[in-house]
Amino acid sequence: MSLESEIVSNLQRVRAAGRELGLCSSEVKNRALTRLAGALRSSHGAILAANARDLEQARAQGVRASFLERMTLSAARIEAIAVSVEQVAALPDPVGEVIAGWRRPNGLEITQVRVPIGTIAVVYESRPNVTVEAAVLALKAGNGAVLRGGKESLATNRLLAELTAAAMEQAGAPPGALFFVPTPDREVIQILKRSTGLVDLIIPRGGAALKEALAGSEVPVLPHFDGVCHVYVDRSADLAKAEEICFNAKCSRPSVCNAMENLLVHADVAQSFLPQLAARMAHRVELRGCPRTLGILSGARAASEQDWDTEYLDLILSIKVVDSLEEAIDFIARHGSGLADAIVTEDLCAASRFEHEVDSATVYVNASTRFTDGFEFGFGAETGISTNRLHARGPMGLRELTTYKYVIRGSGQVRI
Amino acid sequence: MSLESEIVSNLQRVRAAGRELGLCSSEVKNRALTRLAGALRSSHGAILAANARDLEQARAQGVRASFLERMTLSAARIEAIAVSVEQVAALPDPVGEVIAGWRRPNGLEITQVRVPIGTIAVVYESRPNVTVEAAVLALKAGNGAVLRGGKESLATNRLLAELTAAAMEQAGAPPGALFFVPTPDREVIQILKRSTGLVDLIIPRGGAALKEALAGSEVPVLPHFDGVCHVYVDRSADLAKAEEICFNAKCSRPSVCNAMENLLVHADVAQSFLPQLAARMAHRVELRGCPRTLGILSGARAASEQDWDTEYLDLILSIKVVDSLEEAIDFIARHGSGLADAIVTEDLCAASRFEHEVDSATVYVNASTRFTDGFEFGFGAETGISTNRLHARGPMGLRELTTYKYVIRGSGQVRI
Repeated sequence: MSLESEIVSNLQRVRAAGRELGLCSSEVKNRALTRLAGALRSSHGAILAANARDLEQARAQGVRASFLERMTLSAARIEAIAVSVEQVAALPDPVGEVIAGWRRPNGLEITQVRVPIGTIAVVYESRPNVTVEAAVLALKAGNGAVLRGGKESLATNRLLAELTAAAMEQAGAPPGALFFVPTPDREVIQILKRSTGLVDLIIPRGGAALKEALAGSEVPVLPHFDGVCHVYVDRSADLAKAEEICFNAKCSRPSVCNAMENLLVHADVAQSFLPQLAARMAHRVELRGCPRTLGILSGARAASEQDWDTEYLDLILSIKVVDSLEEAIDFIARHGSGLADAIVTEDLCAASRFEHEVDSATVYVNASTRFTDGFEFGFGAETGISTNRLHARGPMGLRELTTYKYVIRGSGQVRI
Repeated sequence: MSLESEIVSNLQRVRAAGRELGLCSSEVKNRALTRLAGALRSSHGAILAANARDLEQARAQGVRASFLERMTLSAARIEAIAVSVEQVAALPDPVGEVIAGWRRPNGLEITQVRVPIGTIAVVYESRPNVTVEAAVLALKAGNGAVLRGGKESLATNRLLAELTAAAMEQAGAPPGALFFVPTPDREVIQILKRSTGLVDLIIPRGGAALKEALAGSEVPVLPHFDGVCHVYVDRSADLAKAEEICFNAKCSRPSVCNAMENLLVHADVAQSFLPQLAARMAHRVELRGCPRTLGILSGARAASEQDWDTEYLDLILSIKVVDSLEEAIDFIARHGSGLADAIVTEDLCAASRFEHEVDSATVYVNASTRFTDGFEFGFGAETGISTNRLHARGPMGLRELTTYKYVIRGSGQVRI
């Protein structure tokens, strides 16, 4: 059997079983999750052994250390995964939620009800926890799930997927709704891209290579890509708050999409604020700046035009002095990626204009951009952060893995 | 200047002006709509003259009569368009609506606020009323609009777009947010398809040729395509209601997507119901049936396998006798297009299973499928009907032309 026909026949199986899963009660789905948490704990020896085999092979193939670190499991990490599965079980079931309802003049009663999307494919790199997270979130929302993880963690991922399917079966949920692709061939991604009618949505979790591999997909993709985030320190900012927020936005975890890359400072406070911030960041962050910044911070080097559009994902910060709120808003419209941007201000009018005019998924007043995250938003589970404008925008929870249908109840009405 | 660079520079202008429009107050937008309604009335002579020129040319080119009919305006049709513009003005503004809001344990206040999508391109055939409808809906929702209509109505469409832009300008809204493509070259559609970053959404309004032209679009497309709709007459149906509903679903307007194509009848009532329905439809509807149907209705011809998947858009009906509710639900899952399906029943349990298990955008109990329509849903305006599962499903109103952002207000919070 060719790879394509093998994948297609599995996708058909997922479609049929997914339809069943979409009709399962919350009780059955939650029972499956609770059993999975138990299985993760009781099988932790086998999981660690599979992970050790993956690591050994990856090391032999010269995979770099930071990558190895991300694919490494420990007893503590497995426990953390089990806890997160239990947290998802505790979340309200999005399926069946009534979003809206109204009665028409002719007596028709229209109800808008949340239902699963169908089949969701998650394409990810080699972090084994994503296998469990993605499966659990898709399944709680009643969707069939197709998981295609990186080749380095194949043994670990396969075992985790088997444990998940077994837990579903024991709980009375159809295990066929979960399909872990056992062939980590890059061609699989190409097959998924053209599987319209069998896959309803592809969610990528990874970097630039994945973005490129998914270009031209016929199946809709919910991207989670660049984050060029800004903090604007207004003329009326409380500079102590500004320092804390900027330090947190840049330094608490520079490698993630919601970290600050560009700092904008109003000219009226630049002279006092920039040296204060530079002292706080001293020896940790490389500072690049516009000419006026360089006049204040002797330690900074000149920023190029390209710097303003770059997601460093590193301890580098570009700084620009601006003359007005408008200039800051325009700069963000031109250079931001529309993910997360913040203003630090004590001026109500400036805060309100910034909220209104900055068109980003998450717009902050006096808080760090680092809060752009499903857990921090209280969604209880990490489905990813959408940089799309359609369907879902910003941090995604279980609801964003659903769609809706309208149920219309009548008593014989016909259209005139 | 090449066609492509000309279109691109216009799209950039729409992006900038659209950003301004998105920030306009409801007052300004509604004033523009009210002025447009007035302009349509006072310019009706010029509109009819432009339409007469278009019709003359189309006739000379041998365009078929039904097409000519659809592109013909009259004083009454222009008045109807003006009235619909006033109705859109009277609708609540979706922009700024607070969808949800909550406070996090750390004091952050998160608000989910409705905002425009950005730039929406509407690609349509030659009905001039779509020019005004599409412009008005996009603009009320704060979006830039790109309109690409069929070549036959070019003079009429251009004049209607000019009147719209003039009304916007007079009201203080940026007229550049509306771009009517004056070159009805098919290549324009290809350019729009690859304009990611400049166009956020393409809405097609037309048939199979348009569907084909939009295949492989890099810009998301909200499709409004096939409708293979079912009515299932349950064993417990009130047969008088069933007759009215079936007759309405098939005959009231057979050329539209929400008309019934397949009728499923429970075996227990087929013997009494089918002759009753056939008598009602006599000499109007061509009946095709499964073998059991043919045993009851001597006038019907045999349905082929292909019939069950065909959107006739015509006075043809395929009929199948089924033995159970489950068989009907499975049949709909296999052959339906997921747009609109109905059950006629007096049995609460059957109604509830049908509502729950049929996965269509609109699921009816004891009402005609013909209600799948923005006006009938009370959305007040016809944006189209989405056959998509993502972003919007079923009849679309102004809300479906928006997205959201999160505004997060803090007092200096940083992430730990």
